[in-house]
Amino acid sequence: HLNKYMQDKVFGLLLAVWGLRGVSRVILANNPLSGALILAALCWASPWQALLGTLGVLTSTLAAVIMGQDGAEVSGGLHGFNGMLVSMLMGVFSSAGDWYWWLLLPACLGSATCVFLFSGLAPLLDRWDLPVAVFPFNIVIVLYLLCTGPYNPYFPHHPATHAGPMEINATELMAVEVLRGIPLGVGQIFACGALGPSLLILGAVLLYSPLLAAHALLGSAVGTLAGLSMAVRHESLYSGLSGFNGALGCMAVGGLFFTFNWRTHLYAIASAFLSAYADIALSNLLGTVGLPACSWAATMIATLMLLLTGSLSTYRIPMGQVMSP
Amino acid sequence: HLNKYMQDKVFGLLLAVWGLRGVSRVILANNPLSGALILAALCWASPWQALLGTLGVLTSTLAAVIMGQDGAEVSGGLHGFNGMLVSMLMGVFSSAGDWYWWLLLPACLGSATCVFLFSGLAPLLDRWDLPVAVFPFNIVIVLYLLCTGPYNPYFPHHPATHAGPMEINATELMAVEVLRGIPLGVGQIFACGALGPSLLILGAVLLYSPLLAAHALLGSAVGTLAGLSMAVRHESLYSGLSGFNGALGCMAVGGLFFTFNWRTHLYAIASAFLSAYADIALSNLLGTVGLPACSWAATMIATLMLLLTGSLSTYRIPMGQVMSP
Amino acid sequence: HLNKYMQDKVFGLLLAVWGLRGVSRVILANNPLSGALILAALCWASPWQALLGTLGVLTSTLAAVIMGQDGAEVSGGLHGFNGMLVSMLMGVFSSAGDWYWWLLLPACLGSATCVFLFSGLAPLLDRWDLPVAVFPFNIVIVLYLLCTGPYNPYFPHHPATHAGPMEINATELMAVEVLRGIPLGVGQIFACGALGPSLLILGAVLLYSPLLAAHALLGSAVGTLAGLSMAVRHESLYSGLSGFNGALGCMAVGGLFFTFNWRTHLYAIASAFLSAYADIALSNLLGTVGLPACSWAATMIATLMLLLTGSLSTYRIPMGQVMSP
Repeated sequence: HLNKYMQDKVFGLLLAVWGLRGVSRVILANNPLSGALILAALCWASPWQALLGTLGVLTSTLAAVIMGQDGAEVSGGLHGFNGMLVSMLMGVFSSAGDWYWWLLLPACLGSATCVFLFSGLAPLLDRWDLPVAVFPFNIVIVLYLLCTGPYNPYFPHHPATHAGPMEINATELMAVEVLRGIPLGVGQIFACGALGPSLLILGAVLLYSPLLAAHALLGSAVGTLAGLSMAVRHESLYSGLSGFNGALGCMAVGGLFFTFNWRTHLYAIASAFLSAYADIALSNLLGTVGLPACSWAATMIATLMLLLTGSLSTYRIPMGQVMSP
Repeated sequence: HLNKYMQDKVFGLLLAVWGLRGVSRVILANNPLSGALILAALCWASPWQALLGTLGVLTSTLAAVIMGQDGAEVSGGLHGFNGMLVSMLMGVFSSAGDWYWWLLLPACLGSATCVFLFSGLAPLLDRWDLPVAVFPFNIVIVLYLLCTGPYNPYFPHHPATHAGPMEINATELMAVEVLRGIPLGVGQIFACGALGPSLLILGAVLLYSPLLAAHALLGSAVGTLAGLSMAVRHESLYSGLSGFNGALGCMAVGGLFFTFNWRTHLYAIASAFLSAYADIALSNLLGTVGLPACSWAATMIATLMLLLTGSLSTYRIPMGQVMSP
Repeated sequence: HLNKYMQDKVFGLLLAVWGLRGVSRVILANNPLSGALILAALCWASPWQALLGTLGVLTSTLAAVIMGQDGAEVSGGLHGFNGMLVSMLMGVFSSAGDWYWWLLLPACLGSATCVFLFSGLAPLLDRWDLPVAVFPFNIVIVLYLLCTGPYNPYFPHHPATHAGPMEINATELMAVEVLRGIPLGVGQIFACGALGPSLLILGAVLLYSPLLAAHALLGSAVGTLAGLSMAVRHESLYSGLSGFNGALGCMAVGGLFFTFNWRTHLYAIASAFLSAYADIALSNLLGTVGLPACSWAATMIATLMLLLTGSLSTYRIPMGQVMSP
């Protein structure tokens, strides 16, 4: 009996560590401590969201164990971060308010579906030594929102709004608010729009790698700049939604998949600009059918950067050796 | 003279067998007898549709012969089923009524185009040992409907309607009608909405493989359940349109590409659910531009299932050995 | 000093030759002289457009040099033609009028982005020995138009109109105008809608290869025929917009990637028809969100043709040996 009890306890502990690793994976880190800090930040911002996120990461990690996925991948948290994002975004887009318990049902199913997509996309992308990244999250959340639609009787959600220039009698832009949007852009990677928790999340990244944190802020600033140049809605700038794709694109190139030097640094800035502009374009496109652009732009631009031939490719770290520290 | 006559006769006979094999391929079977039964069922439901289907399967098989496609593929009926579906669906969506003879022109051209797409997609998908399946049909029918548009003077068609919850003063759901929709879901694979022919089609599958027939019914039931959970229009449930993607997804995993055991059975049910939900999502998306979702959902989910790593992949039957019985 | 001066001069000269090669690459030729003729034709049609095109081809070629792309590709003009098209099309869709100098900024950035996409797509498509073709141009121009949107305060543009049958009180079709649209279809590959320059462009192709020029005219005629059969707007027929995808599809198969004989000639005609119909379908689809179909159709159909197995594949020229003369 004791043995069985110990085994269960050990498995529970392991699952928690895998889950925390998964939480930190969302922001391209890989460290249970960073994961715990991020979870604390999310709990501070909204306990309901933190609950959904925890549920998502545990469900998808468990689903991966049951489906017999590769052990190293599971223990590295690779099967957790997509499920977490799906679960949290379902909460963000839901118009039924917090603590709407029925939402746990699609959250669990959606998180488990991520494992199917992760496992199915891996052999496709592996041919070019590409990571699956957050493609499963982006696919599942778009399908979920399409499936339910804004007027669903069980799971209603807010339609996404365009990022494009729609205001006619816009007020003047407030510089302080725009600057505030830069750290918020880092928090928006976890769909978190409050300043305190965003800074805590940034701190969690700093704990893992100062280089990554610097590129996160830089990318968010670049994204905000791109948003300004295209005259997007002021709310996008203030809330950090303009910045988070830039931040992800910048981090992936500048702090994760390539060895750092001034050349990759320039490529990281280019990647941030491309991600930000592509995000504006995609949110204008998907906004016509009421869908959000999520992190499609950053995911695709980072994938493109990994495929580049020429001078950038010489600094590329092979996938097997990335994410180790 | 006699020799030439005999040769022609033999070729005609062979073409008929290949065509009948192609007809049965639509529902994942591979048996001329099942094909003949299905053709009889279609003739019973609508002679015009059966004519279009026969024309489609013959045209695309002939086109494959002329284009010098692989002989084993042609004689296995692999170049027939996409053409048949394109041709029949053109008839279903046409708003010019039955026996509109001009429709034979796009039906022939569309069926022949399927051979181009089949032959072009095969090398792409072959890298991962994936079948081309009904991708050509889905692409060609969507392009045809986009090309003509609802108000085309020569080939008008009905715009597709959303599956989403659109009714406000909806009547109560009738349980009997919903149950009736389950066998209809099997018939809808051939765009056939009558009960008798649907049962005959189910019988044709039963003749080929009882396992496949059981999974067809199971998948259709799962699809109907998914439709109920998302509160789709009642007509979708009654007509079996909610069920047919689930049926295809369930059959592909449970009865065709994997050896049968209780694990693959569970995966088959998961595949049916994923196909059904993805179908609702896609029909909501494509419905905004007046397009039907066809069998995109089932085709993509089945492809995903074939790509899965982990416990499912150990039961996978290599493509070369599938479809033999 | 003299040495340095000479080197600069030599580099400038080389860049000019690479650029002219890039200009001719747009229409599948590969000859600096043809490039110069085409540039003269564009200058005749609109000096502003010619300036944008020159800027685009130089920017993207320079960006490729800076990014350390393969030298043989750069000197072959492979990194120029996408940038040229992006830059010119930005000018065509801009509603701010000619000589709007701010447009040079997105033109330069968009052209440089093409190098990223070219370099990133190359390893993907290389697996099947496929060319990158004008995929980067099509992606970048669509993203640019989505990003700015019709009401952008800095870079406004005309929304694209449907090709579909929208007119109710249409006037009678004028045969002379339709025939005039056939050579215009060749000019529309460079977004040029005047007869004189179009004929000069055709002359430039004739200079490179009479076979290619014949297929360009044939393809444009086929595209016009396809447009007539689908009752598209009369303006599309008159302006040559119906024909240019057909021309590109026909040229790629009939004069470039396959050795010429009567079989590949028939395939070239089929390719022209498929390109033209796919273009009508895509422009109807993309027109619903105000986007043009560009040359997506021809690019995809040509890629499909290169993938075909069967009798066509035996005449295929390996990618390394194409484009040499």
